[in-house]
Amino acid sequence: MITFKEAFEKVIDHRLDLGAEKVKLIDSLNRVLAEDVLADRDFPPFDRATKDGIAIQFSSMLENGHAYTIEGVAAAGVAQQTLNDTNHCLEVMTGAVVPKHCDTVIMYEHITIKDNKVTINEIVTKGQNIHYKGSDEKAGAVVLSKGIKITPAEIGVLASVGKSVVKVKVNPNICTIATGNELVEVDQLPEPHQIRKSNMLTIEAALLNSKIPSNSLHLLDDKESIKTALEKALIKNDVLLLSGGVSKGKFDFIPDVMESLGVEKVFHRVAQRPGKPFWFGVHAKLKTMVFSFPGNPVSTFANYHLYFLPWLYASWGIQIENLYIKLGVPLKIVPPLTRIIHVKTELKEGVVWGAPVIENGSGDLTSLTKADGFVCLEPKENTYEVGEVVRFVKTR
Amino acid sequence: MITFKEAFEKVIDHRLDLGAEKVKLIDSLNRVLAEDVLADRDFPPFDRATKDGIAIQFSSMLENGHAYTIEGVAAAGVAQQTLNDTNHCLEVMTGAVVPKHCDTVIMYEHITIKDNKVTINEIVTKGQNIHYKGSDEKAGAVVLSKGIKITPAEIGVLASVGKSVVKVKVNPNICTIATGNELVEVDQLPEPHQIRKSNMLTIEAALLNSKIPSNSLHLLDDKESIKTALEKALIKNDVLLLSGGVSKGKFDFIPDVMESLGVEKVFHRVAQRPGKPFWFGVHAKLKTMVFSFPGNPVSTFANYHLYFLPWLYASWGIQIENLYIKLGVPLKIVPPLTRIIHVKTELKEGVVWGAPVIENGSGDLTSLTKADGFVCLEPKENTYEVGEVVRFVKTR
Repeated sequence: MITFKEAFEKVIDHRLDLGAEKVKLIDSLNRVLAEDVLADRDFPPFDRATKDGIAIQFSSMLENGHAYTIEGVAAAGVAQQTLNDTNHCLEVMTGAVVPKHCDTVIMYEHITIKDNKVTINEIVTKGQNIHYKGSDEKAGAVVLSKGIKITPAEIGVLASVGKSVVKVKVNPNICTIATGNELVEVDQLPEPHQIRKSNMLTIEAALLNSKIPSNSLHLLDDKESIKTALEKALIKNDVLLLSGGVSKGKFDFIPDVMESLGVEKVFHRVAQRPGKPFWFGVHAKLKTMVFSFPGNPVSTFANYHLYFLPWLYASWGIQIENLYIKLGVPLKIVPPLTRIIHVKTELKEGVVWGAPVIENGSGDLTSLTKADGFVCLEPKENTYEVGEVVRFVKTR
Repeated sequence: MITFKEAFEKVIDHRLDLGAEKVKLIDSLNRVLAEDVLADRDFPPFDRATKDGIAIQFSSMLENGHAYTIEGVAAAGVAQQTLNDTNHCLEVMTGAVVPKHCDTVIMYEHITIKDNKVTINEIVTKGQNIHYKGSDEKAGAVVLSKGIKITPAEIGVLASVGKSVVKVKVNPNICTIATGNELVEVDQLPEPHQIRKSNMLTIEAALLNSKIPSNSLHLLDDKESIKTALEKALIKNDVLLLSGGVSKGKFDFIPDVMESLGVEKVFHRVAQRPGKPFWFGVHAKLKTMVFSFPGNPVSTFANYHLYFLPWLYASWGIQIENLYIKLGVPLKIVPPLTRIIHVKTELKEGVVWGAPVIENGSGDLTSLTKADGFVCLEPKENTYEVGEVVRFVKTR
């Protein structure tokens, strides 16, 4: 049996290069940027008034003192105006180009206007209230680097530099596969010995949160039909995510069938609880990855976050940051298994505390809804103490 | 001018009751649950084997010791089997109904099988490896309460209890409205005095992260056309989110036009920076809310998170938890304005630290992409010290 750390490294070693594709700007939300994005012009593109008020030439104050005649209005969205008489002023609006021969903007709150004459009531600093051309970014500067996840803030920057089409990392084609004769559809009324499919719906939803639509299969416990279905699925997809059928049962055909279809086993069984019977394999020729998770909900969900998501991010060329939180209760982890314990975290006065949710074994229906992540604890002689810093894997 | 706290309370006081609608299970992801969800049967629905191995009647060990003859196989997805001779055993698979007359399951790893005869090699505890009927939840128990956000974990529970259709809170109809003659489309090449629309695309993306599609408008600085467009928009939408046109400029027509259309001003201008000229109004008859944010990107983004999102959640009947982090640098906040400072946080050894991102005023192009939230700081005499716990508003 392989250790948790070894298993993780083997999975990451098998990352794919998924390439890039172009999508419309708004569809790039929550995708991974696959190009460096440059400023197509200076930002701001002109000396921009940041207040509504008047624009003057500062040096004119030596002559004019605080009294000015209004020559006209410089609105936003209009080509640069010119102040003809530098002893006059122009009204200027936020977002407008600062007029020619002007170098200072004074906001309405600091002036009085009467009969087209302005009196300035406050101290003025030369150059105030102007956002200078190129002061944020010079044309050609990298404003977003490839490999970042595109959030609403990045959408704004992409829009500003004219990226109506954005190059993003390609999503893998994924098939989620439930196995087992005991499973029926969600809208069916199960017989007493049956249960509804739920596990792979959770995974389908988790994939959607990474902006990945998936297709799905349900395999009955029949070796020949499993083989036929998996053969097609291996060709059509980059990744198969399975749940169930990888343990010691008489109908746990998945490992055998996979190997007969040319999927090379990388490992089977990891020294961890839950999720131990995890089978991971690769079809080298088809470049299809097979993540075959044990069938209970907590095992599937844990292994999805512990292995598949880091693999996905690695395949996009980025790394998920390791998070560390403080343990809210003492925990004793006896050898030999790495323990994956689902916890509810609480951010209290700047400190993130995590404590296990009360649960009833790895088949528990609702315990995952009470947790927001897992802590990963290696076995050790001493008890993990309250306040000890431990690795945390976020699940919501 | 109203304080930040007063403004917030007034916004929340104007929450709507958005009602509920039914959607397909997978479409309920990231929506707010609008019904209590009950277990439709016991969970598990039967005494369920949790290991692959054999099932026995524990008391038979007194007679049999450690030797058993295999009578047959109990697979998952098959109606309950019966052990005819209680001195025999049945092979049993994970997920199968524990057979009649059996009360204990022993995993394959702890037995040896030869010629249909089993030898047990480990100590056995009565009742082991059985997940008992109803031990997670009894039929009729509330497994999910209304008001929660539906994440992948909840999707699994909803599937388990047969909710192929889920009642969720209705999304408001929202129109995002950009104002100003200086704005051109993203795919246009701007004239030197023009800039591309970006602000409301950021907001459109942020709304999509709350699963809310929106429609959009661009208003030019012309009072009559603004009036015509807003009159329609007020009728068609529950919420108008505007950016720009609410300051002291000559073409800042929004407040006037709104009031002429029957939108009652709740407040205009809040003692905060950035985002001060925020105008908030309500059309009582149409029940349309108007959030009119100042036009620069940081102001719009901050006010969206500080006011609109809590309003949205309140309208769904839920509350956004207030978060508190530790300040990574000292900050002096002089009266009278509440300061909203965008920060980058770092989770270090269980502690969340936040430090301001380097920025160049509220019109800065890329500063929002460097931050993951805002700290909200009230003015006070003493400096905010390093390590001081301050309120944090997450933006990604």
